[in-house]
Amino acid sequence: MQEEEQIGSRNEDRESQALLNINQMKAECFPQSERIYISMKDGVRVPFRQINLKSPHKPVVVYDTSGVYGDPSAELNLHLGAPKIRTDWLKQRELESCEVNYPADYFIKLSGRKIFKASAGAKITQLEYARAGIVTPEMEFAAVRESQTLEKDGMPAITGEFIRQEVAAGRAIIPANINHPELEPMVIGTKFLVKVNSNIGNSSMCSSVAEEIEKMVWSIRWGADTVMDLSTGRRISETRESIIRNSPVPIGTVPMYQALEKVNGIAENLSWDVFREVLVEQAEQGVDYFTIHAGLLRKLIPLAAKRLTGIVSRGGSIIAKWCMTHREENFLYTHFREICEICAAYDIALSLGDGLRPGSVYDANDEAQFGELKVLGELTKTAWEYGVQVMIEGPGHVPVDQIEINMTKELEECHGAPFYTLGPVVTDIAPGYDHFTSAIGAAMIGWYGCSMLCYVTPKEHLGLPNKNDVQQGMVAYKVAAHAADLAKHHPLAAIRDNAMSLARAEFRWNDQFALSMDPYTAKRLFLEDSKLGECDHDFEFCSMCGPKFCSIRVSREIKKLVEEESQQ
Amino acid sequence: MQEEEQIGSRNEDRESQALLNINQMKAECFPQSERIYISMKDGVRVPFRQINLKSPHKPVVVYDTSGVYGDPSAELNLHLGAPKIRTDWLKQRELESCEVNYPADYFIKLSGRKIFKASAGAKITQLEYARAGIVTPEMEFAAVRESQTLEKDGMPAITGEFIRQEVAAGRAIIPANINHPELEPMVIGTKFLVKVNSNIGNSSMCSSVAEEIEKMVWSIRWGADTVMDLSTGRRISETRESIIRNSPVPIGTVPMYQALEKVNGIAENLSWDVFREVLVEQAEQGVDYFTIHAGLLRKLIPLAAKRLTGIVSRGGSIIAKWCMTHREENFLYTHFREICEICAAYDIALSLGDGLRPGSVYDANDEAQFGELKVLGELTKTAWEYGVQVMIEGPGHVPVDQIEINMTKELEECHGAPFYTLGPVVTDIAPGYDHFTSAIGAAMIGWYGCSMLCYVTPKEHLGLPNKNDVQQGMVAYKVAAHAADLAKHHPLAAIRDNAMSLARAEFRWNDQFALSMDPYTAKRLFLEDSKLGECDHDFEFCSMCGPKFCSIRVSREIKKLVEEESQQ
Repeated sequence: MQEEEQIGSRNEDRESQALLNINQMKAECFPQSERIYISMKDGVRVPFRQINLKSPHKPVVVYDTSGVYGDPSAELNLHLGAPKIRTDWLKQRELESCEVNYPADYFIKLSGRKIFKASAGAKITQLEYARAGIVTPEMEFAAVRESQTLEKDGMPAITGEFIRQEVAAGRAIIPANINHPELEPMVIGTKFLVKVNSNIGNSSMCSSVAEEIEKMVWSIRWGADTVMDLSTGRRISETRESIIRNSPVPIGTVPMYQALEKVNGIAENLSWDVFREVLVEQAEQGVDYFTIHAGLLRKLIPLAAKRLTGIVSRGGSIIAKWCMTHREENFLYTHFREICEICAAYDIALSLGDGLRPGSVYDANDEAQFGELKVLGELTKTAWEYGVQVMIEGPGHVPVDQIEINMTKELEECHGAPFYTLGPVVTDIAPGYDHFTSAIGAAMIGWYGCSMLCYVTPKEHLGLPNKNDVQQGMVAYKVAAHAADLAKHHPLAAIRDNAMSLARAEFRWNDQFALSMDPYTAKRLFLEDSKLGECDHDFEFCSMCGPKFCSIRVSREIKKLVEEESQQ
Repeated sequence: MQEEEQIGSRNEDRESQALLNINQMKAECFPQSERIYISMKDGVRVPFRQINLKSPHKPVVVYDTSGVYGDPSAELNLHLGAPKIRTDWLKQRELESCEVNYPADYFIKLSGRKIFKASAGAKITQLEYARAGIVTPEMEFAAVRESQTLEKDGMPAITGEFIRQEVAAGRAIIPANINHPELEPMVIGTKFLVKVNSNIGNSSMCSSVAEEIEKMVWSIRWGADTVMDLSTGRRISETRESIIRNSPVPIGTVPMYQALEKVNGIAENLSWDVFREVLVEQAEQGVDYFTIHAGLLRKLIPLAAKRLTGIVSRGGSIIAKWCMTHREENFLYTHFREICEICAAYDIALSLGDGLRPGSVYDANDEAQFGELKVLGELTKTAWEYGVQVMIEGPGHVPVDQIEINMTKELEECHGAPFYTLGPVVTDIAPGYDHFTSAIGAAMIGWYGCSMLCYVTPKEHLGLPNKNDVQQGMVAYKVAAHAADLAKHHPLAAIRDNAMSLARAEFRWNDQFALSMDPYTAKRLFLEDSKLGECDHDFEFCSMCGPKFCSIRVSREIKKLVEEESQQ
């Protein structure tokens, strides 16, 4: 009893520390940065981060996923949740308020929040609107984010109408549950900026609720475009509710984890009814996309059993165990149409899970993996029948020479639906560096056309990530995504690189730090070595080469000599 | 005066600390590892590291560049230098002992070491022997390293004769100066394991001699295949001599740096005579390959001057400045045949420098860069006339989609000579993470056929690397090189990955650490998160998922169920 009290007070300490950290993150923009907004016609403001450079250089404006936590002037109340920017938009839809199917929670009591679903017969998904030729405010919002103020011949490079076409064709999705009004919408598709997902979530052995919110805020500070809550421990619903109410980015889950908790961890005791209950609860909470391992058919399991590393997907292994024990087909497959009905009623996107992704380069691209991919293609068509948006999850562990075929096959088998991959890790022998071994594969598959990359942290294969691991994983993946954007010639991608290169050529050190993916680390490493001290002013060389050997300084002199010669 | 004394004693402290560190590195093999040797016919022993795994699993043997510093039982004497394994081999060659052209050094006095060069008219380079059909001991040694004990149908996968053919064709080189008898020979070529170079060297603002040796030992501990000494400061000759005498790996230099020191940093005062003197001194010391920026022609300089980041190669900017000031052609180009004569007399390989490599993704693959590459192709043919081995240096900063063309063009323009690239960095906006932004490009170009990767540390663009930076850079590049080896299906590459994957599937945590590229970091991260404590025994799950959600554990159960079902 005394021990429990002690744990209670330790938890309270950790809670208040987490709240303090969140407020501090909000108070501190990145160096030389400020939050700016571009207003849509209806007055809703689309957030960006503006990086101010030394005069007379123009500021660089960058995509910003940090929501209210990136606006030092905004008010923050974790109990009321983030600003509900979609409320007016949702009023325009054919929705009905519905009864709460899970224990009335804190947020419902406090804020009187209502829960919605589609009215009978109403088609309310982004896919249905897109097909009907309607450009939703969500599409407009995402278009402004993708194109900024960048216009070609007076027109933004990416318009709401363009996004509508891509969504209608199934090549892009906007994960945006109608019960997540706090969401700042974004688009996932091969023609847009490559997105990055960050995973958070307590396991059975860790963490408190406020700490999970802090992880979400920390992830989006470093640029996470979506966040998956992979909690498996106690208070799983409460944690998720708090995260969604405070999240400006889409939240994804693997509902199987909660289902397994409900049957006390015994896979054999799972059933469609238990699973269905979980889906509805999460739908009402506002989860934006579900990972569902419906493609892992019974006939594929023996193919996976003979692998070097078997089944490494948690969700996949659970459903495979169920199939083998019951000698029945995967109930996620047999009940897939009912899953689609639920998703359609709340506009939840499906992320069709690759339960048979390879867990080692040895197992890459085998029969089990590609067999499941074929089934995911079939399920994609079924989901589209219901107007449900779909993306496809991909590997995993794949050697460099076998990555491209994964992208090609995905597009073929799954009819152009966006691909969402975990890496892939390109070698198995560097645990502790798997954020990096996998970001090599991620940069490549992003270039080949993958739409979203699920980040990996240095703790992959070793343990649960802490804050530093999350940051390292995020930076690695933002680098991979950005490298892919550059390679795909996204109209915005090179602006920041070129501003950085010019700052380099002009010795503007502070501008270089400000333009960095991680300004703090760049500056810290500079000062660590530098005998130059704090860089209030800009030096004409650096400690790398010293003044004599500075190629940048010499390069300037050469430029002058070339100019002089050409004028003669 | 008093201050100078203080600096003196500080330097002594640093020296003794460095010596202590070197001895400690030698004393400590990686976990579960031991040094083993495979003996050649003549009794010379080829070193490997054997990673011992939990019984009954077979040990994994890996390539080992750490020389005497990786053998805890070996004796170490930095003053006498590393064991001279090539002495008997060199006796077979037509060499003559020659007069010392630089101030008689410590090592010459202490060990009575002699300096050699080719007898008049003798053809003593690896390339000449290869053309003559002679398999040198250096080729045999490199073949054992590449193929280990791995045999196909009773024959090693890579033979000395195979290496001879590749060297003869100019597709591979063995950098091995006849004045570097301490060298453990290795081969650089597209059909062999992808190699990694590490740069060390004090700048005008840092470091002591013993510290530079320590950096070399630290680099090879982490797997550097060659080391470039890029020192630019005082005591440049003394530092290099100490490094070469103690180095089991080829040492490369950029002779221009020493030449510039000789003219007190004033590029205009450079001349062929000064440069020639430097080449001969370094040749006699035993430098194994020279970076020479002979392809940077005067006509190309205006193309570089209009770039966003101009000329970023130090050597390139120096020679360009000289050309512009004197309004003369690059003297490295006009005297290239004399350079070849020197290289031929000592068997020094040429690393034809890319003085016009792009310093930003914006400048990638431009006229200046490819114009210089064309000249390098012409120089390659000239060098081959003299029997001089050649590799070609490559970029730099290149976006992901423009990497492959660099490799294709290099092979075309330079007649199949091995490519040796610095990265390439695939985005400019992540200083502090450039070991990583560049290792993405490195893994890709390694797969496309690049033979050696010049590592980049987290300090790139920010300052000079410390020990931790060197290690981070090395691990990143060993990952990139290994990812490329896997992708190229090198017969040895997958063995370690598969052993790791099996250890994972069997929860052999200590074996996983032992098989890691960096066992210390892997174990540290595991323990950081783990509530499991030291892993004296192996757990059946880890703290990532806990026991209930462990896919590996569940996967085993599934395997049993599949076996049971198939037996019915």
